[in-house]
Amino acid sequence: MENNAVVVHSGGQDSTTCLYWALERFAEVHALTFDYGQRHRIEIDCARAIAQRAGVQHTVLPIDTLAALGGNALTDAGQAVRAAAGGALPNTFVPGRNLLFLTCAAAYAWQRGMRHLVTGVAQTDYSGYPDCRETTIAALAHALCLGMEREFEIHTPLMHLSKKDTVLLAQSLGALEAMALTHTCYNGLRPPCGKCPACELRAKGFAEAGIADPLIAP
Amino acid sequence: MENNAVVVHSGGQDSTTCLYWALERFAEVHALTFDYGQRHRIEIDCARAIAQRAGVQHTVLPIDTLAALGGNALTDAGQAVRAAAGGALPNTFVPGRNLLFLTCAAAYAWQRGMRHLVTGVAQTDYSGYPDCRETTIAALAHALCLGMEREFEIHTPLMHLSKKDTVLLAQSLGALEAMALTHTCYNGLRPPCGKCPACELRAKGFAEAGIADPLIAP
Repeated sequence: MENNAVVVHSGGQDSTTCLYWALERFAEVHALTFDYGQRHRIEIDCARAIAQRAGVQHTVLPIDTLAALGGNALTDAGQAVRAAAGGALPNTFVPGRNLLFLTCAAAYAWQRGMRHLVTGVAQTDYSGYPDCRETTIAALAHALCLGMEREFEIHTPLMHLSKKDTVLLAQSLGALEAMALTHTCYNGLRPPCGKCPACELRAKGFAEAGIADPLIAP
Repeated sequence: MENNAVVVHSGGQDSTTCLYWALERFAEVHALTFDYGQRHRIEIDCARAIAQRAGVQHTVLPIDTLAALGGNALTDAGQAVRAAAGGALPNTFVPGRNLLFLTCAAAYAWQRGMRHLVTGVAQTDYSGYPDCRETTIAALAHALCLGMEREFEIHTPLMHLSKKDTVLLAQSLGALEAMALTHTCYNGLRPPCGKCPACELRAKGFAEAGIADPLIAP
């Protein structure tokens, strides 16, 4: 049970870095991507391509609940992305999204006798999503352990890293080339729009690390 | 935010008792039923009929992840129900099911400015499901509060009740007649098979309470 891990893998920069982080530590790595009705289906294609490149088992799990709940810019085509303002959460906030993903990942792991879960959430994330914080993840891990009677460990290698440090970590893991396959843009564009909050944050991280983003300058 | 509650409502005896419990305490009650691909679709029809009778707003939320994960007798038509044996969990165990349902219920509540969640889980439940225990529910409540930044309270009025006491509680709440609309049978039969573990537990509860089950003897 000790030498394998499930990585929650969105197809983005952070979870791809986590995938390579897990590959350094565990003999067997499974990548788990959630199809939650995201507007930008390209994310799932990216996740698949990255998992294939990394040579890990990849599963796409459907979760239609988030779109049914509605009310956020990640699943509703009618909503433009708005950044957080005045203490409010941004309209990309899907309440409990990471809690749901990690609980499903734990169920997947439970069925396979696995106990290590890896997620790319970061407290330093610009968005201020409360389900990305260390205290939330620790509380969830406790609930998962009790609720499924397994000693789950949730690894969050990016929790306290800046975007710059995440880029440097990816470089040290040999994951930079895979970054060309990742998707970040909130507008679903490829090449990325370069103007949305997600593109801006990504560009800032690469710029501060002094590394060219292989997605933009291959 | 104080005078309303979301009840996780399966259409069964326990959650129906909880629905009436909530109606005594909150001015506005919403019933939330999960369509998780359960083999016995009759549960959802029962939930709808009970909510209508109780006069509460009813929502059926889809969650296709559990069936996609597979491997349990509640969603897989190919599996017969087996009771727990030798310390093992029964094959009706869906890992994390109640964690998922409550997290989705919290997301539903969050979107509506609500904070009270009600669930019919009970530690005394014969099945030994670890996600029905008080410690699990308390840990999850903590994770939900942190993950969505809301002071959620998870009410578990049946947590320490025997099935007999649950029947007596239903009687005191005026919920007995609604019991004729509930579904319990693991074999999906109506009238119930009377032989599966769920039917046997229900019959025992009514017998010990000295009350005729309106589902069987209307």
